[in-house]
Amino acid sequence: MNTQALQDVRVLDFTQLLQGPYATQMLGDLGADVIKIEKPGTGDLYRSMTFFNEWLGDGESPCFVPWNRNKRSLAIDLKDPAAREAVLRIAAKADIVVENFRPGVLDKLGLGYEALRAINPGVIYCSATGWGADGPYVKRPGQDLLVQGLAGATFASGRRDDGPVAIGTALSDQLGALHIVYAVLAALYHRTRTGEGQRVEVNLLQSVLAFQAQDFFTVQNLGRSFERPASGIAHPGNGAPFGIYRTADGHLSIAMNPWEKIVAALGDESLHLYDDPQVRYDRRDEIYFEIERITATRTTNEWLATMLALDIWCAPVLRQEQVADDPQVRHLEAFTEVDHPKAGRVKVVNIPVKLSATPGAIRRPAPLVGEHTREVLMEYGLTPEQVDALVASGKVTAL
Amino acid sequence: MNTQALQDVRVLDFTQLLQGPYATQMLGDLGADVIKIEKPGTGDLYRSMTFFNEWLGDGESPCFVPWNRNKRSLAIDLKDPAAREAVLRIAAKADIVVENFRPGVLDKLGLGYEALRAINPGVIYCSATGWGADGPYVKRPGQDLLVQGLAGATFASGRRDDGPVAIGTALSDQLGALHIVYAVLAALYHRTRTGEGQRVEVNLLQSVLAFQAQDFFTVQNLGRSFERPASGIAHPGNGAPFGIYRTADGHLSIAMNPWEKIVAALGDESLHLYDDPQVRYDRRDEIYFEIERITATRTTNEWLATMLALDIWCAPVLRQEQVADDPQVRHLEAFTEVDHPKAGRVKVVNIPVKLSATPGAIRRPAPLVGEHTREVLMEYGLTPEQVDALVASGKVTAL
Repeated sequence: MNTQALQDVRVLDFTQLLQGPYATQMLGDLGADVIKIEKPGTGDLYRSMTFFNEWLGDGESPCFVPWNRNKRSLAIDLKDPAAREAVLRIAAKADIVVENFRPGVLDKLGLGYEALRAINPGVIYCSATGWGADGPYVKRPGQDLLVQGLAGATFASGRRDDGPVAIGTALSDQLGALHIVYAVLAALYHRTRTGEGQRVEVNLLQSVLAFQAQDFFTVQNLGRSFERPASGIAHPGNGAPFGIYRTADGHLSIAMNPWEKIVAALGDESLHLYDDPQVRYDRRDEIYFEIERITATRTTNEWLATMLALDIWCAPVLRQEQVADDPQVRHLEAFTEVDHPKAGRVKVVNIPVKLSATPGAIRRPAPLVGEHTREVLMEYGLTPEQVDALVASGKVTAL
Repeated sequence: MNTQALQDVRVLDFTQLLQGPYATQMLGDLGADVIKIEKPGTGDLYRSMTFFNEWLGDGESPCFVPWNRNKRSLAIDLKDPAAREAVLRIAAKADIVVENFRPGVLDKLGLGYEALRAINPGVIYCSATGWGADGPYVKRPGQDLLVQGLAGATFASGRRDDGPVAIGTALSDQLGALHIVYAVLAALYHRTRTGEGQRVEVNLLQSVLAFQAQDFFTVQNLGRSFERPASGIAHPGNGAPFGIYRTADGHLSIAMNPWEKIVAALGDESLHLYDDPQVRYDRRDEIYFEIERITATRTTNEWLATMLALDIWCAPVLRQEQVADDPQVRHLEAFTEVDHPKAGRVKVVNIPVKLSATPGAIRRPAPLVGEHTREVLMEYGLTPEQVDALVASGKVTAL
């Protein structure tokens, strides 16, 4: 009996930066054996990027480490014929291959879908791109922010007088990652019944368009544009009170609720002026500021006590540095700790899904560049002498 | 040979609103047979919600329709014993059950995991909640905006002087949906090898925490908080130029690039003042406005021509109503049209992933309430007389 859902699934991972690594980490979290191919020496480009121009331990990146646990690193130069031969041995046995090079790059290296299918007919080969595998933008850089902007998503948040507002965590990349997982796991299921492998294509652009399905549906079929509110109403298509309000000591979110309950909780009968839902859409900004005038008089916890007793949909609003101390977050063990060989003991977000029979597990931290080069190459049939020769040639990095 | 990846997968879908329905639609898009259980008469609560207080055709919701294609609707009162018997017949043959009631509701109706496992040992039973299946918030309402706020996500976008900024499309719900798909497809794969079913738990809160993994990693391990920029820099942890800039006729996004190329493209040597990356972080707002002063002098297309020639990572920024006309969006056929029985011919976001051997398909539009009640009940062994009796009792709605 397997103890993890994807325990015997072999993933050959040519990805770097965020979209691909996050996807393959999700597969690894549920048990897949992920072999991460990296450039000798410097490795994944994301290792060299960071926030605030600061680093952990001896130069470890807070961008790279969170997306690469449960992987083994094979640092190898794909342009070298002997090195490529070694990679083909792995490809021949891989269930899933994921890559996010610009379209065509792996084909030129003899590692494209057709080449791998020839030696591994059942392979599921996923190409993840920014703008799609072909089309007018095929040669353009496809990056998270660029995709958010082109896909219309930056006009969906913020206030009327703002310019476009980028979503301040890599929305496109992460949606792309989740779409990779969706598509390759469906393809994997298909293969269990038919033996048939296939090519899978995922791109950031369509992932972000799918994310906005109800917005696009509205814009294209009702023929109305979303205009952002002048206040803190939380969606351009919604009326008051839906939004985030200042309190005496922080902020409180209030979602859709029967208006009578809101009026009762706020204790201001004059708000019955706005009993009509159409009025609550048309005059939402005025109503927002009326409400906030009242919420600002008491603390968040006082409002929660009053409102939750009425089953009003509300919650406290936290800053990222406050989240780990929230009682529900602690109860769920949503964060955990991992020992990293260079960064030390680090806090990480735990596996977010629970499978009762096959729970996921963090079996290893993000690897160092080439940490598993020897182990992996020998597992796939190279002799120690062959590995030494590759190391000596400079075409692989082995720790 | 199957022609869709999930062609023979049966999904019993007790979900409503957004998170669950989007998840089961993704399964349906790749071929699963999704039976949507709805309340007789009014159906899914999302059918009664909309934007701008406007509707399509005869009261169809632009919120509901985009998340419910490729499903059949069985409108049935789960509190009625005879009706519940009929649902249990479906449950007995279901591969996947998904529900997003508040924790415990389906247990009380005799449709919880233990009850269904007793009649269907291999069932994969996914409960999707807002805050998790237990813990201190188990009785609190768990809704998209509330989760965004508690999970720290609303302090990740916008500018320094803004309050919390909600992400203006249902971020939590949609991440939750993608996590349901991730977890149930992994569990399904496990079942193909072992026959073992299991309980799967997904919640909005952990889905949104996972989304911010690199932000939390930074906050918790570098011990630094993200402070949003005063300008249009697109992430609190990044320096200039990363952001969205006004042009003479719209907006342009610029991602990370070699700074020399940016200076060359903008044609202002004085920008060499900022050659040091630390300076580009510390003085990012000043730099942002310096750059915008220059980008505002030419059109977006002029800047694209100049910058793409230098392989600078940039793209035009579009409003949602402009997106369908973009050449790459058209090339990908990212939007398509579907005939809906009441809303007429509507434009929808197409299936975002491409599987070469088993492409997804939009086989049917979102159902009307109870549109498939008769068809489904008879498929699962009820006689026409039994169905008539249920209809006569008012416990099911059949169109």
